[in-house]
Amino acid sequence: MSGNTFGKLFTVTTFGESHGLALGAIVDGCPPGIELSEADLQADLDRRRPGTSRHTTQRREPDQVKILSGVFEGRTTGTSIGLLIENTDQRSKDYSKIKDQFRPAHADYTYHHKYGERDYRGGGRSSARETAMRVAAGAIAKKYLASQGIVVRGYMSQLGELAIEFRDWEAVNDNPFFCPDPERVPELEAYMDQLRRDQDSVGAKITVTAEGLPPGLGEPVFDRLDAELAHGLMSINAVKGVEIGDGFASVAQRGSQHRDEMTPEGFLSNHAGGVLGGISSGQTLIAHLALKPTSSITIPGRSIDVDGNPVEVVTKGRHDPCVGIRATPIAEAMMALTLMDHLLRHRAQNSDVRVSTPRLR
Amino acid sequence: MSGNTFGKLFTVTTFGESHGLALGAIVDGCPPGIELSEADLQADLDRRRPGTSRHTTQRREPDQVKILSGVFEGRTTGTSIGLLIENTDQRSKDYSKIKDQFRPAHADYTYHHKYGERDYRGGGRSSARETAMRVAAGAIAKKYLASQGIVVRGYMSQLGELAIEFRDWEAVNDNPFFCPDPERVPELEAYMDQLRRDQDSVGAKITVTAEGLPPGLGEPVFDRLDAELAHGLMSINAVKGVEIGDGFASVAQRGSQHRDEMTPEGFLSNHAGGVLGGISSGQTLIAHLALKPTSSITIPGRSIDVDGNPVEVVTKGRHDPCVGIRATPIAEAMMALTLMDHLLRHRAQNSDVRVSTPRLR
Amino acid sequence: MSGNTFGKLFTVTTFGESHGLALGAIVDGCPPGIELSEADLQADLDRRRPGTSRHTTQRREPDQVKILSGVFEGRTTGTSIGLLIENTDQRSKDYSKIKDQFRPAHADYTYHHKYGERDYRGGGRSSARETAMRVAAGAIAKKYLASQGIVVRGYMSQLGELAIEFRDWEAVNDNPFFCPDPERVPELEAYMDQLRRDQDSVGAKITVTAEGLPPGLGEPVFDRLDAELAHGLMSINAVKGVEIGDGFASVAQRGSQHRDEMTPEGFLSNHAGGVLGGISSGQTLIAHLALKPTSSITIPGRSIDVDGNPVEVVTKGRHDPCVGIRATPIAEAMMALTLMDHLLRHRAQNSDVRVSTPRLR
Amino acid sequence: MSGNTFGKLFTVTTFGESHGLALGAIVDGCPPGIELSEADLQADLDRRRPGTSRHTTQRREPDQVKILSGVFEGRTTGTSIGLLIENTDQRSKDYSKIKDQFRPAHADYTYHHKYGERDYRGGGRSSARETAMRVAAGAIAKKYLASQGIVVRGYMSQLGELAIEFRDWEAVNDNPFFCPDPERVPELEAYMDQLRRDQDSVGAKITVTAEGLPPGLGEPVFDRLDAELAHGLMSINAVKGVEIGDGFASVAQRGSQHRDEMTPEGFLSNHAGGVLGGISSGQTLIAHLALKPTSSITIPGRSIDVDGNPVEVVTKGRHDPCVGIRATPIAEAMMALTLMDHLLRHRAQNSDVRVSTPRLR
Repeated sequence: MSGNTFGKLFTVTTFGESHGLALGAIVDGCPPGIELSEADLQADLDRRRPGTSRHTTQRREPDQVKILSGVFEGRTTGTSIGLLIENTDQRSKDYSKIKDQFRPAHADYTYHHKYGERDYRGGGRSSARETAMRVAAGAIAKKYLASQGIVVRGYMSQLGELAIEFRDWEAVNDNPFFCPDPERVPELEAYMDQLRRDQDSVGAKITVTAEGLPPGLGEPVFDRLDAELAHGLMSINAVKGVEIGDGFASVAQRGSQHRDEMTPEGFLSNHAGGVLGGISSGQTLIAHLALKPTSSITIPGRSIDVDGNPVEVVTKGRHDPCVGIRATPIAEAMMALTLMDHLLRHRAQNSDVRVSTPRLR
Repeated sequence: MSGNTFGKLFTVTTFGESHGLALGAIVDGCPPGIELSEADLQADLDRRRPGTSRHTTQRREPDQVKILSGVFEGRTTGTSIGLLIENTDQRSKDYSKIKDQFRPAHADYTYHHKYGERDYRGGGRSSARETAMRVAAGAIAKKYLASQGIVVRGYMSQLGELAIEFRDWEAVNDNPFFCPDPERVPELEAYMDQLRRDQDSVGAKITVTAEGLPPGLGEPVFDRLDAELAHGLMSINAVKGVEIGDGFASVAQRGSQHRDEMTPEGFLSNHAGGVLGGISSGQTLIAHLALKPTSSITIPGRSIDVDGNPVEVVTKGRHDPCVGIRATPIAEAMMALTLMDHLLRHRAQNSDVRVSTPRLR
Repeated sequence: MSGNTFGKLFTVTTFGESHGLALGAIVDGCPPGIELSEADLQADLDRRRPGTSRHTTQRREPDQVKILSGVFEGRTTGTSIGLLIENTDQRSKDYSKIKDQFRPAHADYTYHHKYGERDYRGGGRSSARETAMRVAAGAIAKKYLASQGIVVRGYMSQLGELAIEFRDWEAVNDNPFFCPDPERVPELEAYMDQLRRDQDSVGAKITVTAEGLPPGLGEPVFDRLDAELAHGLMSINAVKGVEIGDGFASVAQRGSQHRDEMTPEGFLSNHAGGVLGGISSGQTLIAHLALKPTSSITIPGRSIDVDGNPVEVVTKGRHDPCVGIRATPIAEAMMALTLMDHLLRHRAQNSDVRVSTPRLR
Repeated sequence: MSGNTFGKLFTVTTFGESHGLALGAIVDGCPPGIELSEADLQADLDRRRPGTSRHTTQRREPDQVKILSGVFEGRTTGTSIGLLIENTDQRSKDYSKIKDQFRPAHADYTYHHKYGERDYRGGGRSSARETAMRVAAGAIAKKYLASQGIVVRGYMSQLGELAIEFRDWEAVNDNPFFCPDPERVPELEAYMDQLRRDQDSVGAKITVTAEGLPPGLGEPVFDRLDAELAHGLMSINAVKGVEIGDGFASVAQRGSQHRDEMTPEGFLSNHAGGVLGGISSGQTLIAHLALKPTSSITIPGRSIDVDGNPVEVVTKGRHDPCVGIRATPIAEAMMALTLMDHLLRHRAQNSDVRVSTPRLR
C-alpha cells in the first residue's frame, strides 16, 4: 500500500531504480491456464525500448525480461508471476554534481524531502525507466484481454504544437512516434531535429483505446472505470492531464449535443468515450493523456542545493527530448491493467447476472 | 473493494440511493482528539445543498447530517465515525415509464447490464445525490487539514463557453456558482436563464486548490498524489477530464518554459501544479476538472428499452441544468480526502525523516 | 484500513459504541439479485440478542435492524447495503468512577494509550455490543452461501471445565447455550448458577463448521482460507485461540495418522478440518475457538488510574458471566463472511477453470 | 489481493515455486534511512536453511539472498525493496508419477481443483520452500523493530509428545531444534532418529514472543493485533492452530484468575499474552502455533489420481520429518512483519497522541 502496487485483484507490484541492478515485478491474480511466454512480453517491451531511433535516449538496454515463476509448461498456474529485467547499461559516471542539487521539474527535491535518502543516479526510482515493468505486466493483461475479444491500443495524437489526426492503426507501429498518419512522420522528424538543435524538449498527447469491451466493467461509486483509468494513466511519469471521451471539450457542450443516443442498431455517437456512470457501455473506451516536456535539458536552469544555496543546473546525459514519444506502449499497459483488474472484479460480484437485453456497440 | 470505499488509511465508505431511506458513510482512520461537531459538516453540506437558487434542482433536502459514532464529548476518539442523512423529499411519483427504458447518457443502461437489478428511482445509486456523503466526510478531512495549516478550496473556472478568470476567494461563496469574479455573476445568471428556456444543459470546469501543503505527500510509483487525486476527482459524477497544473497545455510547452525553477526565495512559477514526481512540492496544489452537461433534459432523445426496442425518452423531474454548479464543494471534498489519506500514509512510513534543507513555496 | 473493515471483495465496515446512538454497517460487494429482507437478518440477531435468558446480560436491546440501501423491491441491487441498529437501552448512569481508571483485562488501558481519547461508557467501541453488526452482515453472507448449498453453523463445545460432545444440530438452537447435547443443558445451567453465586465468570469453546463447500476456496500463500478464518475468528472479542481441524492435537500426531487418505468414495477422515494448503478440500470446514472468561466481574481487582495511582476496581453493571454463551452466532457470522469473501475472490480469478476430476467429500 | 501479499502498509509480496528458477519478494513501505545489507537477511535465512542437520531435508540450498533495489549506499531509500534467491538444487527427477495423482494431506488435490493447472514439481507454490522469502522480508522488519527496542524471538515448545519447558534464550540457536533447554536436545535427537526409522513424521509446537512493544499497536475491531498475528501465523505451511497468551487454557479459567491485574509497578501476570481488546498492552506478546506432521512420508497411503481412480502413493524425496523443526525463524518472521505493519499503521493515525499515563510492563 506504499504505492508500488497497482490494481486490486489483478495486481502488479514493481521495484527497481534507473541505475540499480535490476527492475522487477510481481503480477498476482492472473487467471490460470493462459499460454504465456517471455516472447509475449518482449514484443511490447521492444516497442518501449530506448535507443531504437535518434529521437529517443541513446541508452542501450536490451530490456530482456525473464519469467521466474507462475508459468509452468507454457501456461500460467494462477500463482504469482515474478518478472525480472537486469539493467545492463548503467554507465558509471560522476554523480558528485547532481548528488546534492535538485534538477528543476524533476523529483529530486520532493524525494529528498519525503525520504531524506535518495538514489540520485539517473533519477533512481523516479526515472521513467520504471515503466518497463508496467509494459511487461501490461502485456500479460493484454494477452488475456485479447482472448476475451478486447483489444487495447494507442497512438500519439499530438507532438508539441502539432496535432495529429487518426488515420489508421496499421501505420502506428511503423514509425518511432506511434503516429497514426504515415504522411505526417517526416514533419514530426523535422520537428524533433529542430528541437534537438534548440537543446530543448516538448510535450505530447497520447490517445489510448479499448475495443470489444463488454458493458458492465467499473465499480461505482469511487472505483468507476474512468476513475481508476485516470489513476493509472496519471501515475505515468510526466502525465499532467487525463480525458475520457470528449474530456474538457464537454465543458462547452450542450446536453442535447453531448449525450450519445441509442438505437437498436447501436449508439449514434461516442462523446462519453465508452463509460456511463463509471461503467463500461460496450462502446470503444477512449482516453487521452497529456505529457509534459522532458525536464532533462541542457539549457541551464536555476535551482538550489540541499543546503538551500542557489545553483545553476545543466542536465547532461542521455535523455528523451520528448518523453511522450515512448509513452504509447506505457499508456496501453496501464489501460490493459485497469481493464484486467475490473474484468476480474466484475466477475467476482456479478457472475450470476443474466440479462436478455441486447448489447449495443 | 467493490467500489464504495475511498482512501487507504483515511477511508470513506458510503451507501445510499437517490430515493432510498437515507444516505450514510463510515469514516475510518480519523486521528483522535479532533474537535468535531455536526455543525462542522453541515457548513459544507449547505454549500452543496440542492434548491438554494433557481439555477439548481428544486428538490428540497435539508441534508441534515447526524454523527452516530466515533465522536465523544465533542472530540474524535479514533474509532470509526458513522454519518447519516435521511432522505426527506423523495417525492413519490410514477416510475413505470423510466423503469424499463434507458435514459441516454445516464447510467441506466450500464447498471442494467452490470447488475441485472437496479433502483431506477431518480437514478438510484448512480445519482449525484450520493455526493452529499462525500462532502460530509470531506468536511472532516478539511477540518483536520486546516489544523495542519492546509487550506482546500475551489471555484468555477468555466461555465459552458464562458471562461472565468480567478479574482478573489472572498467572492466565491457569495454567489450560487462559486464564481470567483463577482462582476461575472450577472452574465452567468443570464446564461443559465437562457439555457433553461432552451430546455438544455451545459458543462462546467472547476478549479480546486490546496495551499500550505508540506513537501512529501504522495506515494510513488502508482499512488502518486496526482494519480490518486485524478482518481478521486474523476470519480465524481459527470467528470470527464482532470488536469494537474498546466495540464493539457503542457503538451505544446517547451521544457525550458514548463519547468519551475527554484531559488532560495522560492519557486519562480507553478506550471507543475504543486506535484513533482507524484509528490507534493509544497507549492499550491492545483487541479482542474471538466464536468459534462447534465444528461437529464426535456428535449426528447432516442434510446432503447430493456427488450431492445426503440423508445423516445424525455427526462422530466427536478434536475440541475448544470451539474457543475454544485460541484465545487464536492471537488474540494475529494481533494481533502485525498490529501488526508496521503498525509497519514506519509506519516506512517516517514515519521523518522528529518531534513535540514529549507522548504520552498 | 484502520481496522473497521473485514473482507476484500465482500466487505463489511462497521461503526458504533456500546452506549452511542446506534450501531451500523456497510456491506459492499454483495451479488445482485438476492432476495433479502430485514427478517433474514433479524433471525440471527435474535439468536445473539442479550437478555433472553438469565445466563446472559440483562441489558434489554431489541436489536431491530434496518436496511437503508442496496435492496430494492426485495432484492439486492449490487450496490452497498447500509444497516442500522439503534441503541435503546443505554441506561444513563454515573461513569465518573470508571472514567479515569482501567478495568483489569479490559481494553481501557490499551485504548487510552492508543488514542488518548475514549468513550468509557460500557467499553465504548471495545464492547462486544459491536458484534451485533457482524451478525447482521453475516446473515447476508449466510443467505447467499445457503443458495450455493453451503451451510454454516456452530455450537458450544466446552463451557469452563465442561467439555461437550456433539450430539445433534436440532438441539443447538433450543437452549440458551447453543449446546448440541440436550441432556447436558441442566448441568450447564447449574454450572452457570453456581458461577453467578461466586460472582465470577468463565471461558468457553465454540466449534463452527461449514458443509457443502466446493474445493478451491482460499488464496495462497498469505490469504489461505484457514489464515483468513483465523483472522476473522480471533477478531471476535475475548477470543484467545483458534484451531482448524485437529488443531493443537496435531502436534503429537504422526504423519501416517494425521493425513486424510482419499478413495474414490471420498476422504477417509477429516483431521485437516477441510483445508489443504490453505484451500478448501470440499470436506466440512471445522474451526474451534477459545473465549476467555468475561473480565467484568464484581470480585474486586487491582488496577491503576490514568495518573498511575493504584486503585481497586469492581465492575458493576449488566454483564455476561460467560461471553462464550452468545458467541456461537458471532462465530458463524465470521465464518460466513470469510467464506463469502473467498467465494467471490475465487470466482474472480478462476471462473474459466474446468476440471473433470470428481469432487470428494 | 490474490493472496501473495502480507500487510497493509509494510507489505511483502512474494513469488516462487519449489523447483522454479528463483524465489523473490518485494517489500514495500519500509521506512527510509535504515542501514541494511544482505548479511542482515542472510543470518535468519541461514537459521531456516535446509540441510544443516540430519533432522531436516537434505536438499542443499545456499539460499543466498540478493537485494536488487530500495537500498542505496547501505541505507534504505523508502522505495520498494526487491529480493531474490535463486534455486540451485532443483535436482531434475522423474515426476511422471506424481504428476497425475494427489499426495494425501498435500495441496495437490486442492490446487488442482482451484487452478486446473499446477506445477507439481516438489509441490510447486505450495511447498514450504516459499517461506524463505518470508524469513528474508521478516529480517528487515526485525532489524527496524530492534532499532525501536522491540525484540522478536521464538523457540520450539513441543516436539511430538515431548513438551519442552522454556529455560533460556541463549540455548535456542545452539541446536537444530530451536530448543530452549539444552539438556533436552539429546532426547529430541533420539526421538527424531526413531521417527526416521519408522519412516514417519510428527508435529511440533512453536512459541514466539515480542518484548519491548509500546502499548497501542493493533486496529480494532477487525484488524486487532492478535487477529492479524493469527492470520500471519496460520498462513505458514502446516500450521493448524494459534493461541495468544493462555489460549485454549483460558476456556477453563475463571475471570478472577485470567485477568492480569495492574499495579504502579506493572502487570502482575500475563495470561492475556500482551494484548487487550486487540491492542498491545506493552507486556510481552506471546503466541503459540501448532504444526501438523509432515505429509511427505514413505509409508504408502491411499489416494486418487486426476481421473478419480484409486492409487497408492509413496512420497519419496528429500523431506523434513518434522516441518516444525525449521518453523521457528518463519514464525518469528511473521510476527515481525505483523508488528512492523501495525507500528506503521499506528503511527499513521495516532502520531498526534500524547498521554501522560505511565506505561506498565
